Amino acid sequence: MYIDKVKQEMKIPEKVRIFDTTLRDGEQTPGVAITPEEKIRIAKRLDNLGVDVIEVGFPAASLGERKAAQEIKGLGLNAKVCGLARVLQEDLDAALDSDVDYIHTFIGTSPLHREYKLHMDQEEILTKAVDAVEYIKDHGIIAEFSAEDATRTEFEFLKNIYTAVEDAGADVINVPDTVGVMVPASMRQLVGDLKEVVSIPISVHCHDDFGLAVANSLAAVEAGALQVHATINGLGERAGNTSLEEVVMALMATYGIKTNITTELLVGTSELVSRITGVKMPPNKAIVGENAFAHEAGIHVHGVLQKAETYEPLKPEMVGHTRRIVMGKHTGARAIKSKLDDYGIEMNEDQFCTLYDQVKKLGDKGKMVTDADLQALAETVLGKPKEEKVKLEGFTVMTGDNVLPTATVKLNIDGKIKTAAKTGVGPVDASINVIQDLVRETADIELKEYHIEAITGGTNALAEVFVIMADGEGHSATGRSTVEDIVMASVEAVLDSINKILLARDMDQLP
Amino acid sequence: MYIDKVKQEMKIPEKVRIFDTTLRDGEQTPGVAITPEEKIRIAKRLDNLGVDVIEVGFPAASLGERKAAQEIKGLGLNAKVCGLARVLQEDLDAALDSDVDYIHTFIGTSPLHREYKLHMDQEEILTKAVDAVEYIKDHGIIAEFSAEDATRTEFEFLKNIYTAVEDAGADVINVPDTVGVMVPASMRQLVGDLKEVVSIPISVHCHDDFGLAVANSLAAVEAGALQVHATINGLGERAGNTSLEEVVMALMATYGIKTNITTELLVGTSELVSRITGVKMPPNKAIVGENAFAHEAGIHVHGVLQKAETYEPLKPEMVGHTRRIVMGKHTGARAIKSKLDDYGIEMNEDQFCTLYDQVKKLGDKGKMVTDADLQALAETVLGKPKEEKVKLEGFTVMTGDNVLPTATVKLNIDGKIKTAAKTGVGPVDASINVIQDLVRETADIELKEYHIEAITGGTNALAEVFVIMADGEGHSATGRSTVEDIVMASVEAVLDSINKILLARDMDQLP
Repeated sequence: MYIDKVKQEMKIPEKVRIFDTTLRDGEQTPGVAITPEEKIRIAKRLDNLGVDVIEVGFPAASLGERKAAQEIKGLGLNAKVCGLARVLQEDLDAALDSDVDYIHTFIGTSPLHREYKLHMDQEEILTKAVDAVEYIKDHGIIAEFSAEDATRTEFEFLKNIYTAVEDAGADVINVPDTVGVMVPASMRQLVGDLKEVVSIPISVHCHDDFGLAVANSLAAVEAGALQVHATINGLGERAGNTSLEEVVMALMATYGIKTNITTELLVGTSELVSRITGVKMPPNKAIVGENAFAHEAGIHVHGVLQKAETYEPLKPEMVGHTRRIVMGKHTGARAIKSKLDDYGIEMNEDQFCTLYDQVKKLGDKGKMVTDADLQALAETVLGKPKEEKVKLEGFTVMTGDNVLPTATVKLNIDGKIKTAAKTGVGPVDASINVIQDLVRETADIELKEYHIEAITGGTNALAEVFVIMADGEGHSATGRSTVEDIVMASVEAVLDSINKILLARDMDQLP
Repeated sequence: MYIDKVKQEMKIPEKVRIFDTTLRDGEQTPGVAITPEEKIRIAKRLDNLGVDVIEVGFPAASLGERKAAQEIKGLGLNAKVCGLARVLQEDLDAALDSDVDYIHTFIGTSPLHREYKLHMDQEEILTKAVDAVEYIKDHGIIAEFSAEDATRTEFEFLKNIYTAVEDAGADVINVPDTVGVMVPASMRQLVGDLKEVVSIPISVHCHDDFGLAVANSLAAVEAGALQVHATINGLGERAGNTSLEEVVMALMATYGIKTNITTELLVGTSELVSRITGVKMPPNKAIVGENAFAHEAGIHVHGVLQKAETYEPLKPEMVGHTRRIVMGKHTGARAIKSKLDDYGIEMNEDQFCTLYDQVKKLGDKGKMVTDADLQALAETVLGKPKEEKVKLEGFTVMTGDNVLPTATVKLNIDGKIKTAAKTGVGPVDASINVIQDLVRETADIELKEYHIEAITGGTNALAEVFVIMADGEGHSATGRSTVEDIVMASVEAVLDSINKILLARDMDQLP
């Protein structure tokens, strides 16, 4: 609502183009390199997502970069395929050789870049920029020009170079905040001033060194910029670039500005890029983080259950996410009652208080309470004897360089002793294989998810293993264990999960 | 520089107070719970960091919360100790019982909150707010009042409730953007309008649902807000709150606004909170991320080596960080040459081209090249036979429920066969113990860091183990291995690292 008060002062366009640079800036994330095959997978996905331009890389950097650009161009995507090039002949030729339909060329313009990197004066830089744009246009290709470090460049020189490249035929000028020094107010001012002197579309390229890349991109759009450079998950050098998912959703939800993005694909795209690059997003990442639509605190859950908008700015489905209610130390009675209702578990006030107290205590110890945990706790409170149908009676595993990893397990299943041995690709795999085999006569329970928390510390640090298993008949449960021995932790977590599933199956069979 | 053009239109204060809410909002991160002992550790650290207020929790939520608040109060910190309370008698009493010196009380004010959560009208809400503030002030305690969901509340009602609590004696009014719907322009407008009607200090509390929490906090300060609520690592519900490290550095570096924060402690504080909460920050997190001051691309490294400011908005030391130059597929020849100079490795142009080519190829395959890797590659190029001094000749490990994890290892060290067996807390620990023991006669190499990447998938997924080892005489090296068997991966990574260190030691002994 407060946006309406300030909206009329802005030069907000109806639609903004998204120039995706995940495969270029994103790939320059230190420690990240994407193989040509992976670039193709990401490019296809970005095209489905609906980005307008895909900057596929820096063709002059290596043969792999050029090959990837050519192959992506060959896919016949809807998005324009763009290559980055310095204003140098060799770079421009490498981009042209890659057969791209769009070249993004740049040269540093700030005093720091002129003096310490380029050793050139303003005139020389301007001439090179103009020559590069003319060269690109001579080849009939779309030309976008960036004055690198524009936000630390004197306005007079910026004006000169941008109008010169416009005259030379450039299609777009891009304003890079190369070291992320802008704030929204200064970005709005700069883009507004440039809009007075340049007629071609203005694009903006922000870096997140102070966590302001998205806000600065929005400020540029408020001043009339028609294109935003962004990367999936905000990948990029140092603190990265403008996060595509955040800027697109803010443009839509706050300003009502359209893009060509199919927002429902955002979470899936973020996950794909995360898997390929190995850069995992934290749970508190906006829009795509695991917690972006998760609620824990009792107070809030009450609000969310009544009406989601009370504590959600967007519907999770809009970005391909799901709402998650998590119980923990802050969980209020209302949230737990609503869960019990969902499961059809009835209990009296005394029993409920006992259960509530147990959830709180687990929370105080730093434990998260999953749905299956709550069910198991409720069963205990209701006086159902908490019986583990499957108990570990004996377990040995061996591995080595010339040893086929082998596990021997002795289980007590419902009072019957069963033993078996099995191999696997490693000791954990062998152990789980043999347990699944032994339990199969009772229920066919499959491992759905196996997760070791990243362990940092010594080799004697606690290993936290988390599993999800399911029986294919609608029962699934998590299992968790934390001990120093990774193999033992895995076995315990699997048994924990299996016992919860068997309990749920028994409950179903009650009259 | 562009900031100077817009600064004079702003009502920028000289200094801003930092109200830290890591222990309250941060702890409401779904899946995070901090034990009372951990709260105390974090509180001490926040006090060293220099925050003005520490919101320690929500005393009414549980006994643990109250105890933690009391104990933190008992530490005699410089920071004010604050407890959160709804405007309810029971909440206020719980906070008073906790002996805090500051109470932050709140009630929802937006139409959504009034209708769906509180079922109260404006008048009733205003009365309760005023009563709560009076009750707090009657006990001689600092009172801060929040109109929850202020940014979706009609301005008329906001004005009424804030002026009413000011009249009731409130010391600070806080403006929460509860679901993160603001953008900087609208936040600046709202805080500016409030400043016209309220004389006590205005505080701001932002959520990061669209990645705008830091920018919105800064916009509030531009309009004259004197206090910012923030959390370490931007922890908090859903996408979290304003990131303390980002907002503090932006205030300082961009606007020249002072805070009481000792910025050099920011990275260490972020790491502590990350360890305790288990919420790991991604490498591209601004200010504190592993990559915040890392550089890979060849072009940029050239600039950074010439003059760091070309590609860095801040000196890394200012926030307790260090600059890192990472080699990979984009690495230019200049960066590699500079590294070789650092190591005192000389090679001719042909040799250098071979080395350069190898680094590029590793990069194209998605590999990062560490310093030790580069040294090892250089040695090979220089014709030094790449000899592994330590080779694995035989390896077996056993573990189980009644088995003391035991590893037997046979190594070939410099041609001599050595065998030993040792136990450990788990199979990995046992294996590393015995290898260290066997190598100790040659060099005393200790494990400094052991890291398993989080594995998600099946139990047959590839396990990636990364180690850092050091010999206490200035040599350290990374080791890495990726195989399905976690134990084998650990052994291979350790041997990889040990061989690199032994090579480096040999080089030192050359005349």
